[in-house]
Amino acid sequence: MNFPATDTLKLDFSQGVLRVVLSRPKVRNAMSLQMVKELIAVFEAIDERNASAILTAETVRVVVISGEGQHFCAGADISDMAGARQRSSAGNASSHAVEGLQQTSSQQIASDPFAALNRAFGTMLMTIDQAPCAVVVALDGAVLGGGFGLACVSDHAIAAPDTRFGLPETSLGILPAQIAPFVVRRIGLTQARSLALLGRRFGADEALRLGVIHDTVDSAEALEGRVEAVIAEIRRCAPRASRETKALLHRVDPPSREPLHDILDAAALGFSAAVRGDEGAEGTMAFMEKRKPRWEGDQQ
Amino acid sequence: MNFPATDTLKLDFSQGVLRVVLSRPKVRNAMSLQMVKELIAVFEAIDERNASAILTAETVRVVVISGEGQHFCAGADISDMAGARQRSSAGNASSHAVEGLQQTSSQQIASDPFAALNRAFGTMLMTIDQAPCAVVVALDGAVLGGGFGLACVSDHAIAAPDTRFGLPETSLGILPAQIAPFVVRRIGLTQARSLALLGRRFGADEALRLGVIHDTVDSAEALEGRVEAVIAEIRRCAPRASRETKALLHRVDPPSREPLHDILDAAALGFSAAVRGDEGAEGTMAFMEKRKPRWEGDQQ
Amino acid sequence: MNFPATDTLKLDFSQGVLRVVLSRPKVRNAMSLQMVKELIAVFEAIDERNASAILTAETVRVVVISGEGQHFCAGADISDMAGARQRSSAGNASSHAVEGLQQTSSQQIASDPFAALNRAFGTMLMTIDQAPCAVVVALDGAVLGGGFGLACVSDHAIAAPDTRFGLPETSLGILPAQIAPFVVRRIGLTQARSLALLGRRFGADEALRLGVIHDTVDSAEALEGRVEAVIAEIRRCAPRASRETKALLHRVDPPSREPLHDILDAAALGFSAAVRGDEGAEGTMAFMEKRKPRWEGDQQ
Repeated sequence: MNFPATDTLKLDFSQGVLRVVLSRPKVRNAMSLQMVKELIAVFEAIDERNASAILTAETVRVVVISGEGQHFCAGADISDMAGARQRSSAGNASSHAVEGLQQTSSQQIASDPFAALNRAFGTMLMTIDQAPCAVVVALDGAVLGGGFGLACVSDHAIAAPDTRFGLPETSLGILPAQIAPFVVRRIGLTQARSLALLGRRFGADEALRLGVIHDTVDSAEALEGRVEAVIAEIRRCAPRASRETKALLHRVDPPSREPLHDILDAAALGFSAAVRGDEGAEGTMAFMEKRKPRWEGDQQ
Repeated sequence: MNFPATDTLKLDFSQGVLRVVLSRPKVRNAMSLQMVKELIAVFEAIDERNASAILTAETVRVVVISGEGQHFCAGADISDMAGARQRSSAGNASSHAVEGLQQTSSQQIASDPFAALNRAFGTMLMTIDQAPCAVVVALDGAVLGGGFGLACVSDHAIAAPDTRFGLPETSLGILPAQIAPFVVRRIGLTQARSLALLGRRFGADEALRLGVIHDTVDSAEALEGRVEAVIAEIRRCAPRASRETKALLHRVDPPSREPLHDILDAAALGFSAAVRGDEGAEGTMAFMEKRKPRWEGDQQ
Repeated sequence: MNFPATDTLKLDFSQGVLRVVLSRPKVRNAMSLQMVKELIAVFEAIDERNASAILTAETVRVVVISGEGQHFCAGADISDMAGARQRSSAGNASSHAVEGLQQTSSQQIASDPFAALNRAFGTMLMTIDQAPCAVVVALDGAVLGGGFGLACVSDHAIAAPDTRFGLPETSLGILPAQIAPFVVRRIGLTQARSLALLGRRFGADEALRLGVIHDTVDSAEALEGRVEAVIAEIRRCAPRASRETKALLHRVDPPSREPLHDILDAAALGFSAAVRGDEGAEGTMAFMEKRKPRWEGDQQ
C-alpha cells in the first residue's frame, strides 16, 4: 500500500513516521481543493496500512504535519474560489439553491461548487481527527482559517514564537464554516465565540493558554528538535495500545448538540450563500483593495 | 421597533451598538425580577430588529452590558425574596408543593412565587446566550451569583482589576439554581464543582485562567477604552456572517446530559424548597446578623 | 451505620469530615483490587449516611483522600495482575473470549479475571464522582494511572510541588482503560489525547494549567493547612444546598458520545486483551528488566 502521488504535499516515510509538508510556499501554503483531496487520500492510505492486526514496518505510528517555508497554512486558497465562482455562474447553482427545498443537503452541496469546495474541508478534518495513529503539527507563521482548523484536529500541537493564529473569515464577509465546529470541539464554546466574533489574531502563548496547542518552543530553529522529542515519547508507547486509547478517548468526548455531519452540510450551504452574497463580494473587494470593508447597516 | 421603556436599565443605542447599564447602584445593581423582565424585553426587541434579512441602521451589532457605579451586579435582589415570601405565605405554595405529584413542573413553578422568580432568571440567561448579535460585558466590582451568570453568557467578557467573582448562594443556604448550568457550560464541570462547593471569591486573573472571561485591563479607567477597541474588532467583521457563525457555534456546543429546560425547571423548584426550608432561613438570618451560619449536623 | 472495616485504607471520621488515607506505603499506595473494593464500600456507606433527609452528626460533609507517605497513588497494583494471570491461565478466559460473540459484555467481563479487575476500577470512579458530599484530594509524589483517575473525580484537588502526574499505561503495553474516560471528562479531549499518546509525566503547575487540579501549595508541609482551609470553606456552605448543587452540576455536564457504562465495559475487555497480548507481555518484561520496550513494527 503506497502513499498516493501528491503535488501539493511533500511526503517522507521512515521508521513508522510519516512527514507531510504542506508545500505551496508562494501562497503561504494556502489550502487548495487539491491539497484537501491529497490530504484525505494520504490519511485513507494510513487507514489501510494500519487496518491490519499485524504491525509491520509499513505501519504509520506518527504523522507530522508542517508547512514549507515560514508559514504553516494561511487558510483556504482564493484561486479555488475564483474557479468555483466561474463554475457557479456558468452552471445554475443559484437556481438550484432556490429550488433547493426538494433537494437533500447532499444534492444541494453536490450541485453548488462553493458548498462542495467548502464541505470537502470538513471531511478532511474529520478524517484526520480520527486517524489511527498520533498526529503532530509543527506550527510557525500563519495558522489561519483552514490552517487553524487543521491544527485543531492534532493530537499534539507545537508552535514557534512567531506563529499567528486566527479566524479571519467573518472579516472577509464569509463564514469559518467547516472550521468553527472543530474549534468548538478543541477549546469549547466560551473561547470559540470570542475568537470567531472578534476575528482577533493571537500568538503562541495565548494559543497555549486557550488549549489550542500543547507546547511552545523558544525559536523556529528549536521546532524540529521538539518534534523529534515528541516522536520519541510517542514511540515509547505501545502502538496498538495507543491506537485503542485514541479511539477510546473519542468515544468519551461529548457529541455535538446536532449531528456533526448535518452541521457541516448546513455550514457548507451557508458558506456558499455568504460567498455569493453582498458580504462576500464586499469583503473580497475590500481585501483586494486593501481597505476596510463597509457592511450593510454601517453608518456612512 | 423601539426598545422597551426600562426603569432598572439605562439604554443607549447608537451606530449599531446598544449600551445596557444595569442601574440600581444603591444595591450594587442587584438583579430584581423587574430587571430580569426588562433584560428579557430588551433582548426580544433585539431579536425583532435583527430578524429582517435586510440590515439597517436599526440592526444591533453589539450589546455592551455594564453596571452603574463601581459594581457590575451583586446577585439577586433580597427584597424580591421578601415579596415572594409574603405571596407564598398568603397563598398556598407549600400545599401545592405537597400535591405537586399531579402537576407538571410548569404548573408547580407558576403557583410557587419563589420558583417563578428563580425560573425567570434562567429564561433571561438562555435568551442572552443566543442573542443574534455580539454580547460584550464590562465587569468591575461585584460579579456575584446572578451577575456571575450574566457574565457567563457573553461572547466577550472584560474585567477590571477589582472585579470579584463568586457563587455565594450555598453559603446563604440557597442554590445557584439557574446560574450553575451556565457556569458548567462556560467553564466545565471540573472548575464549576469547586467554585460552587467552596463558595470561594476570586479575582480577574483567576477568572481569566478559568476561562470565565477573555480579557483583563490594568485599571477601571481602562475598561471603556478596551470596550471601544472590542467594538471596533467586532464591527470589522461582516454582520450577517457573524450572526450565522454564532448560531453555528451553538449548534456544535455539546448538549446538557438532560434537556436544559427540564434542569432549569427542577432547579427552580429546588431553589424554592431551599429558600422556604431551614437552611434558607438560617442562611438569611445569619447574613442579616452578620454571623457565621450554623447548619444542621454541625457540632456545637 | 458504621464505615466498613478496611485493610488498605485508614479511616477517621470527625465532625462531618471523613479522612481516607490510602495505606499501602511500601508500594506507593498502588491500588489493589482490595483497595478498590474498600473504597467502593466506604462511599456506599457515605451514600447511606447521607440519604436521610435529616442531617445529623453522622452526615459526611467532606471526604479528604490522601496517601500515606510521600505518594498519593502510583497506579494499579502489579501483583493483582499476576493473580489474574494465574486465574486466567487456570480457567478458560481466552476460550471464553473466543466464544464471546454470544455473550453480553457483562458475562464476558465476569468470566475474564483481567477485565473484571479493570472494570471494578471504573465502578469506583463513577461512585466517587457522584458522591453526595464534597470530595477533596491532597496530592503529593506519584499520581499515576489509577491515582490520576482518582484525582480526576474530586471536587477540589490540591497538589504539593513534588507531585508527578501521568498516564504511563501505553508505555507498559496496556490501556488507561477505565481512567481515560474520566480524564476526558476532567480536562477535555484536546489535552487528554496528548497526555495519553505521549505518556508524558508532568508536575503540579502544569496540572493546574490543564485543569486537573484547582490548587497548589508551596511545600508538602503546607498541604495539611490548605486542606483545613478548604474544609472550612466547604463547611461555611449549607450541607443540603451543597449536595443538591453538586447533583445539579452533574445533570448539566455533557454526556459521553456513547453511554459511559458501555464504554467502560468495552474498555475493560480491551484492557484484558492488551494485558494478555504481545504488547502487554513485552511492556511488563521491559519494565521488570528496566529496559526500553521493543514494539512490533519497530525497526531493529
